Amino acid sequence: MNKIDMSAAEPSYPTPYYAVIFSSTLTAEDPAYQATAAQMETLAEQQPGYLGIETARSGMQGITISYWQTLEAIKTWKAQLEHQTAQQRGRDFWYQHYRVRIAKVERDYEFTADPAQG
Amino acid sequence: MNKIDMSAAEPSYPTPYYAVIFSSTLTAEDPAYQATAAQMETLAEQQPGYLGIETARSGMQGITISYWQTLEAIKTWKAQLEHQTAQQRGRDFWYQHYRVRIAKVERDYEFTADPAQG
Repeated sequence: MNKIDMSAAEPSYPTPYYAVIFSSTLTAEDPAYQATAAQMETLAEQQPGYLGIETARSGMQGITISYWQTLEAIKTWKAQLEHQTAQQRGRDFWYQHYRVRIAKVERDYEFTADPAQG
Repeated sequence: MNKIDMSAAEPSYPTPYYAVIFSSTLTAEDPAYQATAAQMETLAEQQPGYLGIETARSGMQGITISYWQTLEAIKTWKAQLEHQTAQQRGRDFWYQHYRVRIAKVERDYEFTADPAQG
């Protein structure tokens, strides 16, 4: 029986930090959307206070969570010029609906399976 | 050009509330996992303080976010007996890795495309 490996149960980033939870419904599959999303991810990585990103998609339903050191970093990224343009294109063409949640991450722990016991 | 429909830009739930961000990597596709995940979702809905759930998966990478009124509600759900059993099965068989983040949602807003301007 696997136990949680507490030695590896480190926070991914020092808490507290912030998460932008972006839950979206696309209007249609569009390669231009994929390209822009990838560009925005690369651009986000270059912003001050950026920590990381996680994304998953089931059909038209997507969840993307970006992690940031401070609320100020989130505000700066939201206002970034190319990102502003991408956000507008998203509203004009790509998104049927989205919801944005700004959340303060207070706890963070992980589990990694022990390969020897797999 | 679509504008954000501010009349619809309501928080999904009264802020502040809490999010459990569960980011996982599965070891393999397993129908038993899908069945248990669906059962746990139904069970979560019956817990006090439950607000909602969002989930998406790209291959073996999944993100599930459940929303709760209070930290106490999250603690009670984590300790729920059938949920405990499912968590243990997850560690024994289904998850190669997971990370849990507990976050306080401070802001929440949405965009809905205007169908007339699609």
